[in-house]
Amino acid sequence: MTAEPRKPYDIDSLTDVALRVFAERGYDGASMDDVARAAGITKASIYHHVSGKEELLSRGLGRALDALFAVLDEPESREGRAVARLRHIVYRVADVTLRMLPELTVLVRVRGSSKSEREAVERRRAFDRIVTELIAGAQRDGDIRADVDPRLAARLIFGMSNSVVEWYRSGPLARDAIARAIVTTAFEGICTRV
Amino acid sequence: MTAEPRKPYDIDSLTDVALRVFAERGYDGASMDDVARAAGITKASIYHHVSGKEELLSRGLGRALDALFAVLDEPESREGRAVARLRHIVYRVADVTLRMLPELTVLVRVRGSSKSEREAVERRRAFDRIVTELIAGAQRDGDIRADVDPRLAARLIFGMSNSVVEWYRSGPLARDAIARAIVTTAFEGICTRV
Repeated sequence: MTAEPRKPYDIDSLTDVALRVFAERGYDGASMDDVARAAGITKASIYHHVSGKEELLSRGLGRALDALFAVLDEPESREGRAVARLRHIVYRVADVTLRMLPELTVLVRVRGSSKSEREAVERRRAFDRIVTELIAGAQRDGDIRADVDPRLAARLIFGMSNSVVEWYRSGPLARDAIARAIVTTAFEGICTRV
Repeated sequence: MTAEPRKPYDIDSLTDVALRVFAERGYDGASMDDVARAAGITKASIYHHVSGKEELLSRGLGRALDALFAVLDEPESREGRAVARLRHIVYRVADVTLRMLPELTVLVRVRGSSKSEREAVERRRAFDRIVTELIAGAQRDGDIRADVDPRLAARLIFGMSNSVVEWYRSGPLARDAIARAIVTTAFEGICTRV
């Protein structure tokens, strides 16, 4: 095989590279030099495409949040009993997290220290509020236990699902098995039912 | 009230200050200047007590891990049916996380980029292995469903519990209510049982 010339970078493929670097070194710990090195091009060529590190972060966070909100538009998230919609959303959020690991890693670690980060935190909160409302609805239907605080439940379930960014490496455990285990643990718990 | 003269710092109270700074700004993003500013003393006075930033991190991580391992030595973690020991451990890990928030925040975010961090990751893995074994034991007792992967279950449960460092601020939700919600979600799930 002869080495093929690499396709020139565009803004999307540069964002891919930057997200992998941010996920690995942390956004604060990563420099544009690191991104340039990972891309195998000069820093000047990167600045030809983007204004700086924050634009790359902002694009990555946008991708993650767009994917999460797209889940809410799926028919299974919009139709049927609240608890069934909720199960679908929790499964698909875990699935999106596993499929878009660099994007979600960066989103999960955001702490709101820049404008893009604060905007992402706001959008993420809006997402969590929608899920919290749905948990409250399922509770009114009698499908979710009355002693559950809907906001706390949303936080714990997404805490479980977000944690995959810390330990998942594509390997023997299939994505589908992990997403299903998250749904089972959240809704049924790990104990056998008596 | 007249202002009391501040007690001179010792190594422990300096570690307290440093952990709050690390938890807020991230370890990589925090400098010894930030720690000195938060402590209200000069950087030179800090170096009188510690060799540098990594020693402060190492002491913080040591506190977090000592507290987690101490949970395993409690009688309720050592005696009785595996599932009951497990419930106790999950409750107490959540409780320790909420009580020692700066320490656990720093531990949860560690990615193993220095010697102290790698050692902490190793100790944390050893802790998770003990819990994984206990889940497998409870499964053999028939108390935990057979289709649960013990290692995955340990990761998901601690993922849920670790997530409190991202959102908990001492406020209306009492620590005990959160720790109990984590146990209930993990073992029984949020659905009503039919």
